[in-house]
Amino acid sequence: MPDPRFFTVAAPLTLKALAERAGARIPAGADAERVMRDVAPLETAGPNDVSFFDNKKYLRAFQNTRAGAAFVHPTALMHAPKTLVPLVTEKPYRSYGLAARAFYPEPTTEAGVHESAVVHPTARIGAGTQVGPLVVIEAGVEIGRDCRIGPASIIGAGCMLGDEVRIGAHASVSHALIGSRVVLYPGVRVGQDGFGFAPDPAGVVKVPQLGRVIIEDRVEIGANCTIDRGSGPDTVIGAGTMIDNLVQIGHNVQIGRGCIIVAQVGISGSTRVGDFVQIGGQGGLTGHLTIGSGARIAAQSGIMRDVPPGATVMGSPAVPIKEHFRQVEILHRLATHKETSSEGE
Amino acid sequence: MPDPRFFTVAAPLTLKALAERAGARIPAGADAERVMRDVAPLETAGPNDVSFFDNKKYLRAFQNTRAGAAFVHPTALMHAPKTLVPLVTEKPYRSYGLAARAFYPEPTTEAGVHESAVVHPTARIGAGTQVGPLVVIEAGVEIGRDCRIGPASIIGAGCMLGDEVRIGAHASVSHALIGSRVVLYPGVRVGQDGFGFAPDPAGVVKVPQLGRVIIEDRVEIGANCTIDRGSGPDTVIGAGTMIDNLVQIGHNVQIGRGCIIVAQVGISGSTRVGDFVQIGGQGGLTGHLTIGSGARIAAQSGIMRDVPPGATVMGSPAVPIKEHFRQVEILHRLATHKETSSEGE
Amino acid sequence: MPDPRFFTVAAPLTLKALAERAGARIPAGADAERVMRDVAPLETAGPNDVSFFDNKKYLRAFQNTRAGAAFVHPTALMHAPKTLVPLVTEKPYRSYGLAARAFYPEPTTEAGVHESAVVHPTARIGAGTQVGPLVVIEAGVEIGRDCRIGPASIIGAGCMLGDEVRIGAHASVSHALIGSRVVLYPGVRVGQDGFGFAPDPAGVVKVPQLGRVIIEDRVEIGANCTIDRGSGPDTVIGAGTMIDNLVQIGHNVQIGRGCIIVAQVGISGSTRVGDFVQIGGQGGLTGHLTIGSGARIAAQSGIMRDVPPGATVMGSPAVPIKEHFRQVEILHRLATHKETSSEGE
Repeated sequence: MPDPRFFTVAAPLTLKALAERAGARIPAGADAERVMRDVAPLETAGPNDVSFFDNKKYLRAFQNTRAGAAFVHPTALMHAPKTLVPLVTEKPYRSYGLAARAFYPEPTTEAGVHESAVVHPTARIGAGTQVGPLVVIEAGVEIGRDCRIGPASIIGAGCMLGDEVRIGAHASVSHALIGSRVVLYPGVRVGQDGFGFAPDPAGVVKVPQLGRVIIEDRVEIGANCTIDRGSGPDTVIGAGTMIDNLVQIGHNVQIGRGCIIVAQVGISGSTRVGDFVQIGGQGGLTGHLTIGSGARIAAQSGIMRDVPPGATVMGSPAVPIKEHFRQVEILHRLATHKETSSEGE
Repeated sequence: MPDPRFFTVAAPLTLKALAERAGARIPAGADAERVMRDVAPLETAGPNDVSFFDNKKYLRAFQNTRAGAAFVHPTALMHAPKTLVPLVTEKPYRSYGLAARAFYPEPTTEAGVHESAVVHPTARIGAGTQVGPLVVIEAGVEIGRDCRIGPASIIGAGCMLGDEVRIGAHASVSHALIGSRVVLYPGVRVGQDGFGFAPDPAGVVKVPQLGRVIIEDRVEIGANCTIDRGSGPDTVIGAGTMIDNLVQIGHNVQIGRGCIIVAQVGISGSTRVGDFVQIGGQGGLTGHLTIGSGARIAAQSGIMRDVPPGATVMGSPAVPIKEHFRQVEILHRLATHKETSSEGE
Repeated sequence: MPDPRFFTVAAPLTLKALAERAGARIPAGADAERVMRDVAPLETAGPNDVSFFDNKKYLRAFQNTRAGAAFVHPTALMHAPKTLVPLVTEKPYRSYGLAARAFYPEPTTEAGVHESAVVHPTARIGAGTQVGPLVVIEAGVEIGRDCRIGPASIIGAGCMLGDEVRIGAHASVSHALIGSRVVLYPGVRVGQDGFGFAPDPAGVVKVPQLGRVIIEDRVEIGANCTIDRGSGPDTVIGAGTMIDNLVQIGHNVQIGRGCIIVAQVGISGSTRVGDFVQIGGQGGLTGHLTIGSGARIAAQSGIMRDVPPGATVMGSPAVPIKEHFRQVEILHRLATHKETSSEGE
């Protein structure tokens, strides 16, 4: 059971209600009125908990779970223990997420500005929005409805935020236009001027960075990420894109819709990333590239050339993933063969 | 045009004035008194804007630009559209930077200490310096003239800052002596004790870190970087060195003058980096190395040995860049050859 | 001598006292009552300073040092200059650390809550604990004795901290149970919800993250690290584990006791790391792996499979370190051989 210090569970739900909310089917013969009280992982779930099975690494845990119900793909039904009501769905993890949200809805926001916040008189703050302690909101800021502006965060002069935006603790935002339902995690840095200067032996010449950061609806940006503003064009993060922690986005980068960018990725200036691109952890992209929509870039890859739409690449420098695995295999064979043959010398 | 929510353009300038400030030449016959009102990228510039062309990737944009003038290298003059006055310079990007600074000078600082700041009575703050809201300035701090100490930043006990220093939001500084015209971006961590301990199965022994961080004039350190103080010797960042976001600098590292260190680089303890060294994004250097002046280290490289002055290296582990590209080519050939031959088996 | 702006040395100590505290032996015939006044690196130490020699890279500095005494391994005694009293120990760096702590003990904490801190009335704060300026402590927090809660840090609702915990400037903590003698460095982010969502072309479904972060005794977490809370299970950092700066720990990761994790490492969700594991800088581990106790993972390695206990691996993808070096050698030979032979073509 989630720790009640931190989480409060909502009312129990019948399997029928859960299945409806989660887009799953109850098998014929199961008791649709049976009541579930919580969600839990397979290992710790009990008869009143609903769980899910979505990764064959956890097959044994699934076979041995005491969960009362679990979301499961049709092809995995045969592994379900008899004590469990399988809730059948093509997307078990998605269904589980919807069920968990039913038990643990977002806490409602208490509107109002904390007395310790420093809010410029020209700032406009929408109805239902909560401004936490020690927040700084500068001149001309406009914030929509039902936002949560976390403790000690800073919203710089002129920034606009849509509705239902969540700003984490210690985040700082400047030169940015932010859509609705955006989440910035703690320590995010948005809008500082990028790495823009002309090298010169007599001393670099800094180039004023005159663009903005545009963050579209439903974007999430993980803890301690850094998103530089554009140098003239804007830096743009497309709607629904999910960015993990400690990611670096350089100036003028344009990222499309629905991308998934894992922790510690770095994207250099002016690179354009299409829609629904996935980039694995610690991947690095040099500047001025074009990454086609639907491309998948494996973890730790180094991208120095354009990637075509839909391609899957890996390695540093990255090559098509099949070639990468072949390279790895060949190196392995050469290295182990050499060992064998040199023993015979 | 830069968004007036965030940027305010200064007075218009003649081509003559712009060329003088930017170190460029106006071709014979051009109207030196023609007035420019703004800077803009090639794609969006209009007849009253000045732009620049410095990367052949943008050749088509240059050929089609509607810009009234642009900084351009003598060798690229033939690509200029007829509607454009070319401002000829060996360093188009540098000239553009100077022009942009003429249109967008640094905003002047309103001096004074915000009422919400917590400033120790023994701290000394120079004339013209601005201390933002919710700043903490501890005992014995000395800050020079015309600095901007950003909102919610922390300057730890005993630190010294020169003149015209800019400290970003949420930056924290301790055990540091900082020169003039230094810029620390938001979320920078300077001066915490480094990763210094003696491993021991019975529990590590922490070793007091008794050095400082010395940051020389005109250094810039990007958002969320971490610079540990020395363990006994100091950690030193040489004059004019530019550091991008999310870079890690270990204790006792000494970096020379005019280096360029791209985002997410990590430099381990006690490594010495010469002058004018360039390190690409996500590069990693182990400890106790010597990197010669003028060396260039490619992105994602892993450096485990000293690098001679002027060398260019790449790969993990890094080798001279020519050898690296040969390695890449050989692996590619082996991998693709194997595919062909195995089809014939 | 450490800069008195930042460090205050305690009373002088005799060699006898130093040797006792540091677990070292004084050679027969040396003056055990001789007084040392400070610690210093070999290069700058004088006759009243104690130093150490533990890395053969610094052999010349050791041979030429003016230090009055130094901790040294029995096998290195022959290199000691005659002016120096060798303090003999199997662990010179550990002994040095203990000596340095004798000269520079942790400053004592002035207890009390700064008037600018925002502390919820339901929070409980132990005796001897210092709460710095502009700290936020939310509802239901429990903090033990003799802690230092650094300036502008945030302790979220319901969190528990043990005794003698040090929280750095601008750190933010939520959904966490923290043991005793833990150190969080500036800018650490603990407890935000992890990268947990079900991708979906119609818009990702966020999955509530219902676990916590458990940080056991004596853990240290470096500046600007990010530690996500569990999704249902907890994220756990085992006792005595040392984590350098800018490290990413995903949700549900379990790390054992006494591990050493160098800067910029990333560990993806649900991976389990055993006890006394070492991970070099910028190493990356994908999710759902098991890393056996005592394993060593070299810098920049990419781990995509389980690592057995005690193994040493390197490379991306990682292989046993001997094979890695063989791979590197083979590639080097192929690349340089090719050059030679193609010259003959």
